[in-house]
Amino acid sequence: MGQEINPQTNGFHHHLNGDGDGDRPDLLVLRPGLLFKVFEQEFLAKFNVLKAFESPLPLDKYLRDHTQSARAILCEAIVTRITADLLLQLPALQLVVADGTGVNHIDLAECHRRGISVTNTGDVFSEDTADYGVGLLIDVLRRISRADAFVRRGSWPLTPEFPVGRKVRGKRVGIVGLGNIGTKLAKRVEAFGCKVSYNSRTKKQSAAYDFYPTVVDLASQSDILIICCSLTEKTRHIINEEVLGEKGILINIGRGPIVDEETLVNYLVDGKIAGAAIDVYENEPRVPSQLFRLDNLVLSPHRAAFTQEAFFDAFKIVMGNLDAFFSNTSLLTPLNTNE
Amino acid sequence: MGQEINPQTNGFHHHLNGDGDGDRPDLLVLRPGLLFKVFEQEFLAKFNVLKAFESPLPLDKYLRDHTQSARAILCEAIVTRITADLLLQLPALQLVVADGTGVNHIDLAECHRRGISVTNTGDVFSEDTADYGVGLLIDVLRRISRADAFVRRGSWPLTPEFPVGRKVRGKRVGIVGLGNIGTKLAKRVEAFGCKVSYNSRTKKQSAAYDFYPTVVDLASQSDILIICCSLTEKTRHIINEEVLGEKGILINIGRGPIVDEETLVNYLVDGKIAGAAIDVYENEPRVPSQLFRLDNLVLSPHRAAFTQEAFFDAFKIVMGNLDAFFSNTSLLTPLNTNE
Repeated sequence: MGQEINPQTNGFHHHLNGDGDGDRPDLLVLRPGLLFKVFEQEFLAKFNVLKAFESPLPLDKYLRDHTQSARAILCEAIVTRITADLLLQLPALQLVVADGTGVNHIDLAECHRRGISVTNTGDVFSEDTADYGVGLLIDVLRRISRADAFVRRGSWPLTPEFPVGRKVRGKRVGIVGLGNIGTKLAKRVEAFGCKVSYNSRTKKQSAAYDFYPTVVDLASQSDILIICCSLTEKTRHIINEEVLGEKGILINIGRGPIVDEETLVNYLVDGKIAGAAIDVYENEPRVPSQLFRLDNLVLSPHRAAFTQEAFFDAFKIVMGNLDAFFSNTSLLTPLNTNE
Repeated sequence: MGQEINPQTNGFHHHLNGDGDGDRPDLLVLRPGLLFKVFEQEFLAKFNVLKAFESPLPLDKYLRDHTQSARAILCEAIVTRITADLLLQLPALQLVVADGTGVNHIDLAECHRRGISVTNTGDVFSEDTADYGVGLLIDVLRRISRADAFVRRGSWPLTPEFPVGRKVRGKRVGIVGLGNIGTKLAKRVEAFGCKVSYNSRTKKQSAAYDFYPTVVDLASQSDILIICCSLTEKTRHIINEEVLGEKGILINIGRGPIVDEETLVNYLVDGKIAGAAIDVYENEPRVPSQLFRLDNLVLSPHRAAFTQEAFFDAFKIVMGNLDAFFSNTSLLTPLNTNE
C-alpha cells in the first residue's frame, strides 16, 4: 500500500533549476505564505528572493531601498494585501503571482490601470476544497472529531454513551456559490443521498438543483448551509443574523468575512443554531476562544484547499508563470483584471 | 434550516403503546445495549422487561429464578453473547431479537436446533456505516480531527504550520468485504475520484471493480484498506502482519477482532504504516492507550453504524418483530439460521 509523497525528492530540482547563480531575477515576497514556506528552497534556487519579512526596516523604507527594480511579486491571500498604495511603491512591478485561487486580496482594477499582469493557480485547489467540505459535513453530523477527542481522553470505558450523531442521507444541503468548488461539492453530497439547492449571483442553466435568489430563502429550505463563494464586497457578511436565524448547520470553506463572525459565535454559544464547521475566520489565525469548548462544532485552521499534492500542482503553476514571465513567453494562468 | 429529531416526541407512544398493564409479556435483557438505553421507556411500556443486569444475583441463579417462562430475549452484539450454554438455561425461549445487523454473537446453529427464531435489524445501518467510512477516510487523509484538536488547543496563532494532509482523488481504495456496506462505500468514494478494488469470499459478477482473491494481494495494490466484512472464524485476524506490512492506511468499520490489534498498535507506534482510522476494537470499550497520542490516526467509539435516524428505524423493526411474535403473525426480518 501507499507511498509518501515528497516533492523534494522527485526530480523537481533537476527540471526547474539551472538558471545558474548571479543572474537570478528578483522575486519580492512581503510575507511568506504556506506555499512559499514549503517550497522555499526551490524559490531561493531560482530567484533572488527579496524577503521583506526578514528585514528590520519598516516596510516603506524596505521597499524604497530594495525593491525599486523588482518586476514580480509572489503573494498569499491571507498574509499579503496588494493595494493601490503598495503598487505605488513598486514602480517596476509587472507581475503579481497569487499562490492560490482567490484574489480578493489584490486590487485588480489598479493592476489593470498600471498594466500589471496577475496570475492565480487556476482550479488546482477546488477539488480538495470540495472534499474537505464533505469531510466537514460528515464530521459535524456524525461527530467524528468529537468522537476522536472522546476516545483519546480515555473516556470511552467510563462513559459508554457517547451521543450518536445524525444521518447524512436526506439532509437538505444549501450551497452558497455554485462555482467550481460548489459544483464539485454538490456532486459529492448527491452520492450520499443529500438534496442539493443553491444560491448564486444568477441561476445556472446547466445546474439541475433548485435555485434560491437569496441566501435567506436558501437557508430556510436547508438543513446545512455550505459557503463556497468567493469574498467580494457583495458577499461580505451575507451570512448574517437573518440567515443564521434559520437555525441549521453552517459550514464555511469560503472566506471568514463572508460570515458575521460575532453573530455566529453568539448563536453557537447560545445554542441558537444546530452546529457549524468552520475552516476560515474573520481575523485568521485568531479563532474566537469561546468556540473551543463547544460540542456541536468542527474547527479547522484554513486547510480546506490544501493537500501535499495540490500544493505541488500549485507550485508548478506558480513557477511556470514566473518562468514564462522572465522568459517573455505567455503566462499559464493570467487573470482578466478588467472586470 | 434544520429540525432536531426526537423520537420521544413524534407520536410514537401513541401508536405502539396500548397493550394495557398487567398482561405485558416478558422480555429478557441480559445487559442493555445502546438501542435499549435510548428507547428504554418504550420497551418498559410494552413489556415486562426482565433486567438481568439490575439483579444482584449471579446470572445462573437469576435465570433459574426469573426467566424460566421468558419467550423472547433482546440482545446487543457487543455486550451479550447468545451461547448454547445460555440457551440451555432458557427453556421457554422462542425468539432472539438482535438490535443490530451483525449476529456473530449468536449461536445460530443451536438456535436452529432448538427451533428458536432469530431476527436482526436488516439493512438499516449499512448506509450510515458507509457514510462514516467515507468520513474516516477523508479525516485520516485530510487530518480533520487533528486540525480540530489543534485549533481547540489554541495552537493556530502560535504555530501556523499545521501540516497539510493528503489528496483524496486518485487514492486506491481496497474494500475488504463487498456486501451492503462495502458496495455503498464503493459508490461514495468513486464520487471523489478514488479507484476501488475489493476482496471478498467470491468475485461478484455484478461489481465492475478489480477483485483480488486475497487480502494481502488487495493490500499490495491499495493506498487505503477499508474493513467492511463481518466477523466470522474465517475473517478473524485476517488483517495480520503480512497485510499491515504493505504500509498503507487501514480503516476498520467492521469488527475489532478482524484485525490483529496488537500488531496494528505496534505498527502504528513504530510508524510502519501510513495511518489508521479505527471504529472497532478487539476488547471494546478498551482502546490501547498507546494510540491516544499518535498523530496519523482517527479513533472512534464504535459509532460507524449509529445515527439517531437509524436507531429509530432499528427500534421500529425490533418492536415490529416483538409485536409480530407476541401476536402470532409473521416476523418482519427473520434470519435463516440453517446455514
